[in-house]
This record gives sequence, C-alpha cells and structure tokens, in this order.
Amino acid sequence: MPVFQHTLPNGLVLLAERMEHVRSAAINFLVPAGCAYDPPGRFGVASVLAEMITRGAGPRDSRELSLALDGLGVDRDESVGAINMRFWGSTLARNVPAALDIYADIVLRPHLPPAELEPVQALALQDIQSLEDAPQQKVMVELRRRYYPHPLSKDRRGRTEDIEALTPTAVQAQYRRLFRPNGAILSVAGNIEWEPLKVQVERLFDNWSPGEAPDLTPEPHAPKSEHLPKDTQQTQIALAFPSVPVGHPDYYAARAAAAVLSGGMSSRLFTEVREKRGLCYSVYAFHETFKDRGTMLAYAGTRSDRAQQTLDVTVGELRRLKDGVEDDEIDRVKAGLKSSLIMQEESTSARAGAIATDWYYLSRVRTFDEIQAAIDGLTPRAVLDYLERHPVRDLTLVTLGPEPLVMPE
Amino acid sequence: MPVFQHTLPNGLVLLAERMEHVRSAAINFLVPAGCAYDPPGRFGVASVLAEMITRGAGPRDSRELSLALDGLGVDRDESVGAINMRFWGSTLARNVPAALDIYADIVLRPHLPPAELEPVQALALQDIQSLEDAPQQKVMVELRRRYYPHPLSKDRRGRTEDIEALTPTAVQAQYRRLFRPNGAILSVAGNIEWEPLKVQVERLFDNWSPGEAPDLTPEPHAPKSEHLPKDTQQTQIALAFPSVPVGHPDYYAARAAAAVLSGGMSSRLFTEVREKRGLCYSVYAFHETFKDRGTMLAYAGTRSDRAQQTLDVTVGELRRLKDGVEDDEIDRVKAGLKSSLIMQEESTSARAGAIATDWYYLSRVRTFDEIQAAIDGLTPRAVLDYLERHPVRDLTLVTLGPEPLVMPE
Repeated sequence: MPVFQHTLPNGLVLLAERMEHVRSAAINFLVPAGCAYDPPGRFGVASVLAEMITRGAGPRDSRELSLALDGLGVDRDESVGAINMRFWGSTLARNVPAALDIYADIVLRPHLPPAELEPVQALALQDIQSLEDAPQQKVMVELRRRYYPHPLSKDRRGRTEDIEALTPTAVQAQYRRLFRPNGAILSVAGNIEWEPLKVQVERLFDNWSPGEAPDLTPEPHAPKSEHLPKDTQQTQIALAFPSVPVGHPDYYAARAAAAVLSGGMSSRLFTEVREKRGLCYSVYAFHETFKDRGTMLAYAGTRSDRAQQTLDVTVGELRRLKDGVEDDEIDRVKAGLKSSLIMQEESTSARAGAIATDWYYLSRVRTFDEIQAAIDGLTPRAVLDYLERHPVRDLTLVTLGPEPLVMPE
Repeated sequence: MPVFQHTLPNGLVLLAERMEHVRSAAINFLVPAGCAYDPPGRFGVASVLAEMITRGAGPRDSRELSLALDGLGVDRDESVGAINMRFWGSTLARNVPAALDIYADIVLRPHLPPAELEPVQALALQDIQSLEDAPQQKVMVELRRRYYPHPLSKDRRGRTEDIEALTPTAVQAQYRRLFRPNGAILSVAGNIEWEPLKVQVERLFDNWSPGEAPDLTPEPHAPKSEHLPKDTQQTQIALAFPSVPVGHPDYYAARAAAAVLSGGMSSRLFTEVREKRGLCYSVYAFHETFKDRGTMLAYAGTRSDRAQQTLDVTVGELRRLKDGVEDDEIDRVKAGLKSSLIMQEESTSARAGAIATDWYYLSRVRTFDEIQAAIDGLTPRAVLDYLERHPVRDLTLVTLGPEPLVMPE
C-alpha cells in the first residue's frame, strides 16, 4: 500500500496509508513528551499530563470531550512511552475528520483544569501501588530501571512522592515545555482520502509553533543486577543485554536471533524451558529498541524451587546461540516473520502504529517489499556474524521473589 | 461477507467466511471438551489434555509437529474454556490446507505420550500457583467459582492434588470420552476457496465417529458472596448478577446496559469511579454468556482504604440503571457497538471466532445486517424493559485483599 507523507512548515509529520478494502481507520499521534522528559522531582508528570490532557480541550469540557469521541465510536487510548506520548484512536473511516478536529483541540488547546488534578493524582498513585500486586510486570520495570541509563531508565508510573507534590502549574509547564510540532508524528491508516486529510491537518495544525527539544542525552551508566526480595509464590526472572537498534545493518539478524530463541512453539527457549522440562508456563525473549541502542530482553516466571534451574537453562540457551543456528531454524523464523508482516498489513491499527514508528526511528517508512526482502535475506551466517559483533555477555539480571539466584558460570 | 456452512454426516460443522481482500486466514476449531467436563477427582485434566494433545500426532512426534506448524508460519494457541477446547491458528491463506492436515492429526490421532505427562503436570501446577501472584485474575476465578453452579463454576486450572494424581491413562480416557465430531465446530475465515476446503475437511474428518455427549446439567446452586483475605497492596472487587444469554430477545438490551455502564470513556462506571473520584485505575462491567444463562460481571481494583467507597459507587451505578437511560447514551452505545462490529469484520481471527461462537450458541451465524439492525433498534425503553424483567439484584460479591467490605444498603 502506498504511504503518503507531508511535513508541515512547523515540522509536524503527517503520514497516511490508504487501505481501500476496509471501512475503519486508525489514528496514531506521537508527541515527543514521554516519561524520559520528566524533570527531577516530577517523575510521573508525563502520565499525569496524559490523563489530564483529555479532561477538557478547545470548546469542550472534560465530559463533553468524552461524549464527543464516544459519539463517534472512537475506541481510544492515551499512553506514555519513554520517548513519546501516544494518542491512539480507531473508528469508522468516515468519522476520522471529526475525530481529528477533537484531537487537535486535545493536543493544542487542552484546559488542564486544576480541579481535575486530585483525582488524576489518585489514579497515578494507584497505578504505582498496583504494580506491587503484579510481580510479572514489576520485574520488567525494575530490570529496565537498572539496565538503561538515565533518563531512558524511567518508568511511566513515576514516583509516589513526586506525584503527591505535583501542582497544576507543574503539569501545565510540562505541557508547554514539550508539546511542539517538530518531532511530532501524526499517522492515519485505513479507508481515507489523502488530499482532504492533508488539507484538514494543515488547517488544524499550521499555527502550532515549533519549540526546542529538551536534551535527552543518556548519562554514563553501568547496568546493575539485583535481587528484589518479595514474599511471592513464584520467582520472576528478567534479563537484558545489548543488541542493535532498528536501522542498524544487523537489525534483522538481531530480530532473527530473538525469534530463534522465542519465535514459535519450536523455538529454543520454549522447547528447552517450557516443553521439555516444564520449568515455567511463561518464558520469552524479545528485542526492543531506542534510536541509539537496541536491547534483548528475556523473561521467565517459575516456582521458586525450580527458579535456579530455569535461570541456568535460559542463560544456557542465550549463550549457546553463538554455537550455530540451523538452516531450517532460519526457514521457520522467516515463515513466522513473514506471516506476522502480512497480518500487520491487514490491520488499520497495526499499520497506523507501524508507519509512525518507522518515521520516528528512521525518518522514513519501510515498504512491505523492503522488509520482505530483508527477511528473505536472512541466513544462519548473518545471525552468527551479528552474534560475533554483539556477543551474549554482560547480562543484567533482576529477580523478584523469596530467594536470590546465582548467575550461572 | 457470505458464510458457507456444511455439516458432515458425523455431525462436524464446517463454517467458512471468504474475505477476498486479505492474504491471511484464521482457523478456529471448537471441540466440546472444556473444563466443565472434568470428572470428579480430575479437575484440571482438560488443561493437561490441551497441552498434551499437540505433543505428537499422526506421523509426527512432538518436536516434528511444532516444527511443521512453525514452518507454515502458524501463530497458534490451544485453550480451554468452560465448555469448549479451542484450537486457534492464523497464517497465510495459502498455508491453510497444510495446517488443516496437521490439525486433523492433532484432533483425531494424538499420541498423548506418557513420557510427556510429567512436564505437562509441572506446567499445570505452575499455572495454579501463578494465580496467587495475580490477584486481579484470581478474584474473577473465585467469583465464577462461587457464582455459577457446578459444573459451570470450574476453572480451567483445576486442582493441585487432582493434577498431581493424573495418570497417562486418565488423560487418554478424557480424550476418548470427549473428542467427537457431533458438537465440534471448525471455522475458517480469510482468503480461502470454499469448495476445495469442504472437500479437504470431508476427506480429513469423515471417519471420525460420533459419540455421546456427557451430561452437563448444572446442579442446584445458590451463589455465595465471600471475602478472601490476602496480604495484597490493593483490594480486588468482583461482582456478578443474572442477565440473559445470547439468543434471548433481551440480549442486545443487556449488551446495551453493559455498554451504558462500561462502553467507553463517557460510560457511567468509568466516569463516576475512575474519572470523577480517581477511585481506581481499572473498573469495568461486561456481559458473558452460556447457552442457558447470561451474566453481568463487574470488576474494580483499588487501594484498600478506598475500596469500600469504590464498592458503594459501583453498586450504586448498577442499581441506578433502572432509573433511566438517556437517548444520547443509547446513541453513543450504538456508535460504539457498530464501530466494534466493523473492526471485527476486518480481522480474520475475529471472524473465525465469531462465526464458530455464533454456531455454538445459536446453531446459525448472525449476519452483519442482522446485528446492525439489532443495534439500530436499541432504545432507552428496551434497556429499561430488560432491567424490569431482569433487575439488578442478588449481587454476588467476591473481594480479595486485607479487609472485607460491606455490601451497600
């Protein structure tokens, strides 16, 4: 499908993919206002802002705004990543223009009413507290906190004392400091017409003034392994080690390595940890990326008396990758990646997300043919070359449960 | 999209929806072998069987079977519901015939190898244990256990002592007792051709012998409210009360009532509990159905010192429904339901699931126009009529957390 692209004079990037055989459309709006930008003493302000920003905007108060979007049948979500705040909405394609009018109000003219701060703070505090009852999520949050350098290590939930101390002025200041068109990416995928969309977006966002991007340079950092004692039934295991970011020549080889470990029922971690030994119900590895760095992460949750064995087997599989990858493993990896690629092509939400994410990382949208060619080009040799350049070592290990574990070897 | 249907002489129902603008297809195979059929002393055997059944079938051993499906790029899952065991797979449409050959082996010729029982038991025990670290899920399991009559009340995870006592013979007996074509539904949605599909399915499944359906008549039962003390950070609240099943004349009115409570950001529970008062991050109500009964369920998880207030407000909103529903609320409910309906039409997985589910409940597939007309026909009066016939009372309440709560009024 062709992807249309237009950059407004103020820097806002508009992307659209026309999918003429569907009736829906999805909107994905990335604004560089993620939690990595939370200032010292205000950890969690991005999440508070994301919840406040829809509580009244333009001519509508909080209630009227919810009513208007629900009236258009918009399924929506506002979420906070490390780098971007994301506004996602999905509805009938014919309702997209009306929805965009409202999103323009939200992004450009939010009321951020002081009276709403208290319930929003209460929600943010609950979000932190509920993580204590979700050890599977908590171990990944704690891993990222120790693995990544500041400010990439921050969690969107922030810090209790910081959230309690927030004022309406602080939330408004965060909005004014970060919301700007240069760096923002608005994407739409579905049964839409490009020309009217472009005209509407120009009209809605032309007056948005560009601003300075705050610095996000990571601080020097040494990742730190740690056991977090907790009186849980099971032990949670989380691992991270360096890989390459999207856009790197080794990126697809890194994705293939992750898929060899965790890409299907016959993948190595699934086979060795889950199927053969019954060590844990849930085990997986995956690749995640920032612009300047990629990381491999792995997770396993298991009963505490088998946790050490689970760690030993998991780390053993990670290290064993360098001993070689079979031709037929790569064939299955290719089949799985291509199948996923085609599924993604059929979903307006997936496409709206993918084209915006591509633009964020690469300043362009990868074509289907390009990705397919990269998948087709994968070989065992390419994966081994990647692993030689980026060996599995310097593993950061965070565990959560009754007893600490010992890193094997 | 037209739905093709064919019933084999042995009773197996084949359904297919041709979606010619996609390249993928999804398979959804329901076999009436859910956990409600677990015999006394063998609670959890359905889950063990679902994990065992793919560990070798027909000419392939466990490993070869995983390799074959991964080689076809099949994203898959086997899961156990109360009534049905479900085999789901999604891949390129052109790989469906090869995948169906393998699924026929799994369903008709599983090896159920005794040597695999031990790791599968270990997984099943972990599944039970991990629920202790997931209070949000646990409270819903415990609610269903107390609300529904035996055997509908069973949880797929089963019971520790029963799983520990399972033998290969018991698992094989469960397979032989339950796997039969009469009552099974195989659906496919995507870019497939009906005639070749029908011929293939007839060839693969024609020799499958029909059998007797074990009795599932629910026992007399009085739902029971209960507080489950647990040293968690938050208190989990779960509620259930009677509604009507799918196929009932009031079904769409019941769905509309659930949507008035919980169908969007402007819905009543979201507004009153989350937005206005910041009482909890997650609150929702939904409708669920068996063939003979429908139920409304509600969930909220919150900090313990605000749990009583959360329960009071939630129950207040449930009871307040009978005081009336506004025209514009129903308009928004219609917009939301129609938007969901259209999204579903665009996903092969959603369609494969929907046509099989419709057939299971209604012995036919509802058309898009029929569902749309039912949604269009919703009025505040219809919702009130439903609520008069099925008032919000006899609430079953299960809470999990440090302190019990008091049902308001």
